[in-house]
This record gives sequence, structure tokens and C-alpha cells, in this order.
Amino acid sequence: MAEQLPVILDVDTGIDDALAILYALSSETLNVLGITTCFGNGDITNTTRNTLTVVEMASHSVPVYQGASHPLVSPWESTAEAFHGPNGLGGTQLFHPQMRPESESAVEFLRRSIDQYAHDLVLITTARLTNVAALLLAFPEVSVSIRRIVIMGGAAFAPGNVTAVAEANIWGDPEAAWVVFHSGIPITMVGLDVTTQVPISDCMLKSLEPTTPYYALLQQAVDFYLGAYNPGAPKGDRMAPLHDPLAVAVAEDPTLCRTHPYPVDIELRGQLTRGMTVVDWRTRSTTRPNIDVAVEVDRARFLTTFAKRLHFDRVC
Amino acid sequence: MAEQLPVILDVDTGIDDALAILYALSSETLNVLGITTCFGNGDITNTTRNTLTVVEMASHSVPVYQGASHPLVSPWESTAEAFHGPNGLGGTQLFHPQMRPESESAVEFLRRSIDQYAHDLVLITTARLTNVAALLLAFPEVSVSIRRIVIMGGAAFAPGNVTAVAEANIWGDPEAAWVVFHSGIPITMVGLDVTTQVPISDCMLKSLEPTTPYYALLQQAVDFYLGAYNPGAPKGDRMAPLHDPLAVAVAEDPTLCRTHPYPVDIELRGQLTRGMTVVDWRTRSTTRPNIDVAVEVDRARFLTTFAKRLHFDRVC
Repeated sequence: MAEQLPVILDVDTGIDDALAILYALSSETLNVLGITTCFGNGDITNTTRNTLTVVEMASHSVPVYQGASHPLVSPWESTAEAFHGPNGLGGTQLFHPQMRPESESAVEFLRRSIDQYAHDLVLITTARLTNVAALLLAFPEVSVSIRRIVIMGGAAFAPGNVTAVAEANIWGDPEAAWVVFHSGIPITMVGLDVTTQVPISDCMLKSLEPTTPYYALLQQAVDFYLGAYNPGAPKGDRMAPLHDPLAVAVAEDPTLCRTHPYPVDIELRGQLTRGMTVVDWRTRSTTRPNIDVAVEVDRARFLTTFAKRLHFDRVC
Repeated sequence: MAEQLPVILDVDTGIDDALAILYALSSETLNVLGITTCFGNGDITNTTRNTLTVVEMASHSVPVYQGASHPLVSPWESTAEAFHGPNGLGGTQLFHPQMRPESESAVEFLRRSIDQYAHDLVLITTARLTNVAALLLAFPEVSVSIRRIVIMGGAAFAPGNVTAVAEANIWGDPEAAWVVFHSGIPITMVGLDVTTQVPISDCMLKSLEPTTPYYALLQQAVDFYLGAYNPGAPKGDRMAPLHDPLAVAVAEDPTLCRTHPYPVDIELRGQLTRGMTVVDWRTRSTTRPNIDVAVEVDRARFLTTFAKRLHFDRVC
């Protein structure tokens, strides 16, 4: 068996986070050491409970560590309810997982794991970058030991999804993103440029094998997600982006996306552009590239793997 | 003879402004009522003198009105010397035109002309939008009488040329651009998306007819301009964008560019994005479009007309 890649997922579960967790836990090449949670698609209580729910439904026992409940230096504004529903998993039904989060905090767990897997560990973030930023602010010395961070977030050449130019995970804590983007750690940005190219559809959802343990959860959650992304559209024709699973997939198999190194900075002060990932792609830019920006995705290959892993019978 | 279109050019001459003026003055369909000047590619004394020089060399007598010497609410920072040379026309040789600017100010002239040609007049701006903004702030009632403003400025989907995201004419007075973009006046934005697609070249410059009255001026100015855009490149292979002439050409013949209506706003506060033309091109944007953004240009047709008008023998 090939050597496994040690990873930690940082999530704000969330419907596409749920799919990302299921994708990661069903991988034979990823060694998921733990999952850290962050506010975002719901408050931290919700996102942690949802994370435990998904892990439990996957019959897994990966430990879950609770993290930040609010951005570094601004109050939390929820904007995700429309896309993830009042409980963060697309429904009013509250799940009651048996599992509990670990007593160790997300930052402590991250620090300990980075020490243990120095230079090998890859972080995969599908949430605001608050936990990683808090880690780097408290323990700057760990940055050199992190192999890479694969970030679902940002928009380089695509429009934003919260404002005209800002993507939700960056917009939701721009100062945290600034800290991470300026850390010198190798970073792959899996942003809206590529995640909007890989949709789940009504047709795929219909093909989910009914014996799958998380069948009921996904039927409810993904149906809500498809509805949120397609207001007014009839069931059957709807599609919605698999943002977070793509970040996990790229961490596992970097060849799924073509990336290009660019200088990318985070706008903190704009009245229109706060939270924008500002890419300097001028031909004559003399700024050193700090981010590998995913600019193209092998849609068919990702969706085929995604369907297989999560027990969808069809890609359609 | 077809009815002529009354226009006023607002310029900061500047090498490509010079070419834009020559393009406009040689048009049979544009009735250039006057030219207003603005600081920008040089200080206002330079840009006004350069404008008079170009008009005189074209053996024309269109009146020139001096305008703003600094941005609305920020100090003037010159950044254009590298591209337009110490005198704004690519050389150390100072020209000494006989013509003098009119005693009427740029704003007064604009106001009077708009009254006189109500609903017919098109403004063509190849400079900071300071003069037009000052006009609109002092006399808001004129806005309904301006037929259209064709602006060389901004960058919708192309990178900036002063910062990663900001184009010089917007960056040079963002507050002025904000006033104009929010005025409700029909606006065509001829930005870097299209102007960088229409270059002049060493080869074209070589083909300029030696009997042309402004032959010596253009040889010096365009040679400097080509050098500035191609540092270190050998003479012969150089190309540089015809930003300002394209705006004049689009005012004269709107079919030269494909435009798309978008909501466009001006970032005033960003530490990275001040002066950015922020385009909301989200599929589900509910903001009303305010700007016709030029997104594609008929390169060959523009360059052919440009060459013919200015007595270049070849497009190459």
C-alpha cells in the first residue's frame, strides 16, 4: 500500500463540508489525523455538532476538535443560512451524535500534530482561516513545518459569491486570510475559479445508493443545497458547486487541477473589495508569487471519483 | 455629408493623447468643439502646452481650455513620467506653440457646450475624470443633457497598469471617477480590456509618411513610448497600446467594440484596490448596470482606420 498522506481537515460543516469529510474519510491515501471546526456555515456549536454527525454517519472515529467561534478581529456575521439552512445541514431536523469533541482545542491539536508530522502534514481548510491564523499568531515557529495548506477559498478570475469580488471563506475573516497568505507556507488556493466548475446535480443525488448509511442525511442536505443555489428552479434541473470536496481531492491528488503561481494578497480595507483575493497577474509584476492558484480542473475525473467514493451511481 | 457628432475631448497630453487628438481632428464625422485639459501624464502646464502643440501641428484651430491641476480630494502624485517622458511628449525638447489656451475654464466651457448641444454632445475623456466630476459637482443639472461619456479608463477583466487592479486614469482620481460613474449619464468604459489589444509598433512608426506635418513630433514621442513599454527590448520588435485613440474611435463608431452593460463601482478605500473599477458580473447580481463595458475590439478595423487617418502607410 502506498504511503499515506497525513492531513487535518479544518471545516465549518455545512453541506459541502459534509461531502468533503465523507470524501476524505473514504480515501485510501489520506490519513485524516483529525478534524478541526470553525464558525462559518453555522455557529461553532452547530458546525461542531454537524461535523460529529457526519463522522458518526460515516462509521468513523476520527477525533474532532472545536475551534474558533468568531473571526480574529471582527464580529461574526452569518450569511450562510440561505445556503446551508438553519442547522447548517439543510434542514430543521437536529442530529444528535453520540460522539463528543475532544477536550484539546483545535489550535493545540494542530500544533501537536504539526510537531509530530513535521514537514509531512497537509492542512485542508474548507472554512474561514481563523483557526490556522490563530495557530500562526500564537506559534509562528510552526509555519516552517507545515508541508502545504490547501484552501477552499478566494476567487482569482471568477466573481465572488458574497460580494462582487469576495468569496465567503475569505470574506468571513479577511484578517485571518491575510495572516495565512503572508505566512510563507506553500499554499494551494482552490477557489471559485475551479469549484464552480464541479457541480452536484439532482440527477446525481437521485442515484445515491439507498443502502448508504448517510443516505437520509444527504437526501435532506443536498436537496436543500440544490434548492438554495437554484431559487425557483424545478427539481430535476438543479446543480450546485462541490466547493469543499474539490479542496480535499486536490490535496489528495494535485494533478486534478492545473495551478499557476501568482502573487495574491488580501484586501482588508475596501468598502467594495474587503475580503478580495487580489491577484497580481500583470505581465511585468515583480512581486514574488506566494500562492498556487488552481485555474483549471479535470471536471470529469473529479466527479467520477467523487461519485464512486460517496456511492452515487451516476455522474450526470 | 452625414450629420456630425459634437464632441469635446478631455485630455492630459501625453503621447497617446496626442495620437487621440490627431485621430479626432482628422475625423469627418466628429465635430470637435473644443479640448479641455487635465493634469495626469504631466502637470497641467505641460499637458496644456502639449495639447496646444499637437493642435497647432495638426494645423487646426480648435480651442483649448485649461482644467484641473490636481485631483478632487487628494494630492497629485505623478506616475506617468516613465511612460510619457519629462515633458509628457517623450522627450526633453520643449515645444513652444503659438496658440494659447482660452480664457474660459474647462468647466465653464463644458457647461456652456452642454447647454448649447443639449442631448447631442458626447464627452470623450482620456484623462483623470477630475474636470467632468468638478462640472457635475458644481452643476449637477447638466448630467441629464450629456448624451454619453466615452471614457478611456478602468480595467474590468484585465489587470491594472498602476497597481494589480487599478488603471491610471481611475487610480489618479478615484473620487472623480466615483462621481462620474454614479452620475446616471450613459457611459462607455474603454478600458485596458480592449486598449491593450490595439498596439502601435516600431514597424508602423517607421511607415509614417515623412511629409506629415507632425512627423518629427511623432518620431520622438512614439519612439519614447515604445521604449517605455518595452524596457530592454531592441528597436524593431516593440509594441505599445493605443489607449486614448481607441476611446475617440469608439465615440465615433461604437461598433468598433462589443460592449456589455455591467454594474461598475469605484473602490475608494482599499489598501490594495483603491481606484479599482469593481465589476459585478455575478450571474445573480441584482444591481442595475450603469456602465457599458467594452469587452472586445475589432483590432484590424481600428488599426487600419488609425493608420490611414494619421498617415502611417502600414498596419504591422
